[in-house]
Amino acid sequence: MASTPVTRHSINPKVLECEYAVRGEIVILAQKLQEDLKNNPKSHPFDEILYCNIGNPQSLGQKPITFFREVLALCDHPALLDKSETRSLFSADSIKRASQILSQIPGKATGAYSHSQGIKGLCDTIAAGIEARDGFPADPNDIFLTDGASPAVHMMMQLLIRSEKDGILCPIPQYPLYSASIALHGGTLVPYYLDEATGWGLEISELKKQLETAKSKGICVRALVVINPGNPTGQVLAESNQQQIVDFCKKEGLVLLADEVYQENVYVPDKKFYSFKKVARSMGYGEKDITLVSFQSVSKGYYGECGKRGGYMEITGFSPEVREQIYKLASVNLCSNISGQILASLVMSPPKSGDQCYESYSAEKNAILTSLAKRAQQLEHALNSLEGVSCNRAEGAMYLFPRIELPKKAVEAAEAAKTAPDTFYARRLLNATGIVVVPGSGFGQAAGTLHFRCTILPQEDRIPAIISRLTQFHEAFMKEFRD
Amino acid sequence: MASTPVTRHSINPKVLECEYAVRGEIVILAQKLQEDLKNNPKSHPFDEILYCNIGNPQSLGQKPITFFREVLALCDHPALLDKSETRSLFSADSIKRASQILSQIPGKATGAYSHSQGIKGLCDTIAAGIEARDGFPADPNDIFLTDGASPAVHMMMQLLIRSEKDGILCPIPQYPLYSASIALHGGTLVPYYLDEATGWGLEISELKKQLETAKSKGICVRALVVINPGNPTGQVLAESNQQQIVDFCKKEGLVLLADEVYQENVYVPDKKFYSFKKVARSMGYGEKDITLVSFQSVSKGYYGECGKRGGYMEITGFSPEVREQIYKLASVNLCSNISGQILASLVMSPPKSGDQCYESYSAEKNAILTSLAKRAQQLEHALNSLEGVSCNRAEGAMYLFPRIELPKKAVEAAEAAKTAPDTFYARRLLNATGIVVVPGSGFGQAAGTLHFRCTILPQEDRIPAIISRLTQFHEAFMKEFRD
Repeated sequence: MASTPVTRHSINPKVLECEYAVRGEIVILAQKLQEDLKNNPKSHPFDEILYCNIGNPQSLGQKPITFFREVLALCDHPALLDKSETRSLFSADSIKRASQILSQIPGKATGAYSHSQGIKGLCDTIAAGIEARDGFPADPNDIFLTDGASPAVHMMMQLLIRSEKDGILCPIPQYPLYSASIALHGGTLVPYYLDEATGWGLEISELKKQLETAKSKGICVRALVVINPGNPTGQVLAESNQQQIVDFCKKEGLVLLADEVYQENVYVPDKKFYSFKKVARSMGYGEKDITLVSFQSVSKGYYGECGKRGGYMEITGFSPEVREQIYKLASVNLCSNISGQILASLVMSPPKSGDQCYESYSAEKNAILTSLAKRAQQLEHALNSLEGVSCNRAEGAMYLFPRIELPKKAVEAAEAAKTAPDTFYARRLLNATGIVVVPGSGFGQAAGTLHFRCTILPQEDRIPAIISRLTQFHEAFMKEFRD
Repeated sequence: MASTPVTRHSINPKVLECEYAVRGEIVILAQKLQEDLKNNPKSHPFDEILYCNIGNPQSLGQKPITFFREVLALCDHPALLDKSETRSLFSADSIKRASQILSQIPGKATGAYSHSQGIKGLCDTIAAGIEARDGFPADPNDIFLTDGASPAVHMMMQLLIRSEKDGILCPIPQYPLYSASIALHGGTLVPYYLDEATGWGLEISELKKQLETAKSKGICVRALVVINPGNPTGQVLAESNQQQIVDFCKKEGLVLLADEVYQENVYVPDKKFYSFKKVARSMGYGEKDITLVSFQSVSKGYYGECGKRGGYMEITGFSPEVREQIYKLASVNLCSNISGQILASLVMSPPKSGDQCYESYSAEKNAILTSLAKRAQQLEHALNSLEGVSCNRAEGAMYLFPRIELPKKAVEAAEAAKTAPDTFYARRLLNATGIVVVPGSGFGQAAGTLHFRCTILPQEDRIPAIISRLTQFHEAFMKEFRD
């Protein structure tokens, strides 16, 4: 490629800097092994790759919610609504909902660009869903529909970051979308460490300390990212903790960027999800007191519709002149995909008690959530029973983030292989079992500690086999490298 | 909003700089008038807003292609394929194609994130479609599926632009996605002017001149954007002209960014679309000779599926290490929406002669393209018959870009109203007729000239009324301001 005008040295250095471990080197290796297996099923000591690297439920066999898919199919091909056979193929509720949605789209044109914030009627539905969830008013004009949560996060980073002197407070460990987006927009990630010893606790003293440190380096901290329920850590914040966070942001003049995409994924009876907006409003803080962005996605929850790329952000506390700039950013990309928009409205306004399909819908939803809770518990117990491994419980989200203490010899072997010890472990695990996890270094971790992130998403009947493969691998690994 | 931590003065100045006229002030005014009409149908001297500002065919009544929508609906709700009623609701070809597509998706999981470049089988289909179009090989690994063409353009700008010292050669007039994206990524737009007198001709001497001027200012020009068929200008490049452009890029070490989203929109018998890849390969230039990106979208063509946000870019001539960086950028956003991916594969591999549904598909396609050609011609003639207006023919794409010569008094009235003369004209037109066009200044225009962009998309039966409203308005306007 001697003559190519673009080399690694002539591209945007921010692109080189940015890292995204969830689809990084371990996953690229996994894809290679999968190709090997396709060509020769005996090429490895396992017969399939188990992708536990990413919160992608349907790739591991989770079935979509029937009501949602029926509505999507009808909206994709509205001509179906005029045919009599449709009534025997689709539930009456789906037909009703699809008709309702289509009536909100001028000309029923699901193939047209919408308003850049999204279809007005769908924004109304979402705002009503937020109101029903929180018990506080939500304004449809505050909703920006997006292709999943990622573009919404990028949009806020693009708005807030002017140079490397602008900082964004991010949890460590964090979901690497944040570090990647901050790197791409040329800002500085200001880390605050979650306390593993207290179940990944978020301490205000730590926030204050890191804010001060950043300020002393001349960094202007603009926003605080909170992921609740946590990714990769799985903790669910207590309401009192959220109140402290709101007060901290208010006092320090920070935008609160609340990643609330796992709001439906809470698995323990002693914890409950509260949106930051609800918490702020309950404290008596209104639009003028706190600047808050809440991110939601159709990819997570019990629906897990990752491939649909639907989501929204609700922005509150911004001045009209700044909103205008946010709208302009949205308008450059015209609009998010209409199926994703429709699905976002459905997850915020699912069938209700009394609806004909409510029972079957609830059965599907509860089966998924109950099973996820069970899988989380089984995997957590299995991990905690391994030598040198300790794992906080997954109160929510879709992940476990166990800490691993590796023997000195393993760390030296990793060094010799020029790789981080957790990557060394994850690669060995993959090569031995076909299980794909993400090394903790991809999320950030306290100095001197090692972790990996593993989803709780393989189907329930696969969990025993995964646990046994994982256990066997770990025992052999520890034996090989024991000091 | 006294306490908000974000003000117009504290946001990223690149966001402030960026402009996107296609959804700018005239459109915001149009939305307000539409709201007025909803509340009081007699509030304005027209009863509806006609959005001729944007290439959004289905918003103006264009019907989607049945085959495409049937396949999408089946893929959205694969359970339909197991039901006997489905055979009476969907064509056999749609059922076959949907089954084929689903078999290419592991677990038929259309709700799962795909590979970050897109579903492997769909990339194969698209590459085969490109091969059939061009008569030269296409590699599925070169395909990156995206949510419409816009994110693909942003991705390339993000890759290439390091600072304001990096320049991108763009046509003037241009589609403002380019100027917006260059501004957001902090680069410099290096303009080259299309020659209106020769039907928006693209002169190599002009490219050379502008490249030299930019170099003399210390700008490192990285890429050349060519939009073919042109937006907003509607011209279709001659193959000989494309050959010169390829040679220019090769000689000057520029990446050729070929916006080919209107490849199906050619309306005149004396012009034909050739992809830049076909042209380069026909000249004997291979992968190592020229670095080329071709953008395609499901939003345009005869399909006009804007709301689906599907598209792809085909990248050739990049080194493996740079490709790796492009893949990483794609992976940060996980993947594009699966319906859009499916649709992108369908438009590159539509029903073929001999397929059962070929006749009905062709009838739908030809009706749309024939009608678009007719509308283009009617509007062009009408515009050319107005005093002070001259308009090149729309050989392709979806737009006319007439030049208007306004009386001195109109220019002075615009100045008094603190607005550009073309914006003044467009606002007057909107207020008088409900027709929304985009002022030429939103696309860039040669100094001292004024234009507006108007789509050819209103349905055929509306064209006479539009022409008569436009003509009446223009006559009254000229009378009011005549020198």
